[in-house]
Amino acid sequence: MSSSSFETLVRQFAKLPGLGPRSARRIALHLLTKGRGALTEFADTLSDTAENMKECEKCGNLDTQSPCKICSSTKRQHNVLCIIANVGDLWAIERTSSFQGVYHVLGGVLSALDGIGPDQLRLKELEERLIHENIDEIILAVSATVDAQSTAHYISDLIHRHHNQITITRLAHGLPVGGELDYLDDGTIMNALKSRSALK
Amino acid sequence: MSSSSFETLVRQFAKLPGLGPRSARRIALHLLTKGRGALTEFADTLSDTAENMKECEKCGNLDTQSPCKICSSTKRQHNVLCIIANVGDLWAIERTSSFQGVYHVLGGVLSALDGIGPDQLRLKELEERLIHENIDEIILAVSATVDAQSTAHYISDLIHRHHNQITITRLAHGLPVGGELDYLDDGTIMNALKSRSALK
Repeated sequence: MSSSSFETLVRQFAKLPGLGPRSARRIALHLLTKGRGALTEFADTLSDTAENMKECEKCGNLDTQSPCKICSSTKRQHNVLCIIANVGDLWAIERTSSFQGVYHVLGGVLSALDGIGPDQLRLKELEERLIHENIDEIILAVSATVDAQSTAHYISDLIHRHHNQITITRLAHGLPVGGELDYLDDGTIMNALKSRSALK
Repeated sequence: MSSSSFETLVRQFAKLPGLGPRSARRIALHLLTKGRGALTEFADTLSDTAENMKECEKCGNLDTQSPCKICSSTKRQHNVLCIIANVGDLWAIERTSSFQGVYHVLGGVLSALDGIGPDQLRLKELEERLIHENIDEIILAVSATVDAQSTAHYISDLIHRHHNQITITRLAHGLPVGGELDYLDDGTIMNALKSRSALK
């Protein structure tokens, strides 16, 4: 392996989220010292993934099949649609095993700063689904950030305009698990007080 | 100032929460180099506080008067009682300016590990207040930690036994402000999904 192709490998690793030049160099060296086998195995996994990963034509999830396993499962409730910003959020919710409905990935959130408008999100696909599928509830499961919340409001208005019979819900805002009052920000405490619920 | 009294000062600072021996030494040195004036001013403030700070006989808050400013205010709703674990939590809620009721400080939470049982908390005082004051709602505003939540359940049972007409509520559990789905723990996402609310 020439020194310049090693440099290219380091630069490729350094571009990945969470890695800098130093850790990229350490990883590349680790693979090199493990020998040619480790490198080709890694290369094969990458090409396999590139070949087999598909974006689900219905929800936008990444899977080896399209429609994805969630969309084609008969065990899920296809009348409850959970809208999330991206595939990472979908996986975060799936990890909890507490949701039995199906998803719709937006592919981002509205952001004036990053120049992301409604046309960049998978909203036309959402409209299509609302017309052709039988959906009773839409959960706007977006993060509690400003951009994500305004995206949720935009979508809620969009849905309400044509589909008045669909219930639109949002995730609860309040104390995170393990959250101590004294260390939480004022906004979170205000939300938690405002949305307090009767103890059963 | 003898070297040993300097050592005592450093040790006193090092005992405070958030300070270690190194930062304690830096603080002590900072005061010393500012001269005798800074030290006596600090000493006076400490003795003044020691002299004037009182625990409110009603709610357990710390103030220069007893009953404290909150308990004796006529602008607050005295029929809404917010139960918190300690004075730090009371101040955290007061900072939000979003609560108009009054408080009751428990003085801690039940903890088998630290040997804190119901007798160590200000529960008898709470019982007295429930009998003599006209309270419609009790907010169990405890942190989202295991100990704090079991304390809340214990108190809720205690109140329900004798005062069935009082509404007992708890803070909402869900996404904290700015919380991103992909970075939150599974428990928080589950709570947020379970307690989702209709978007208005």
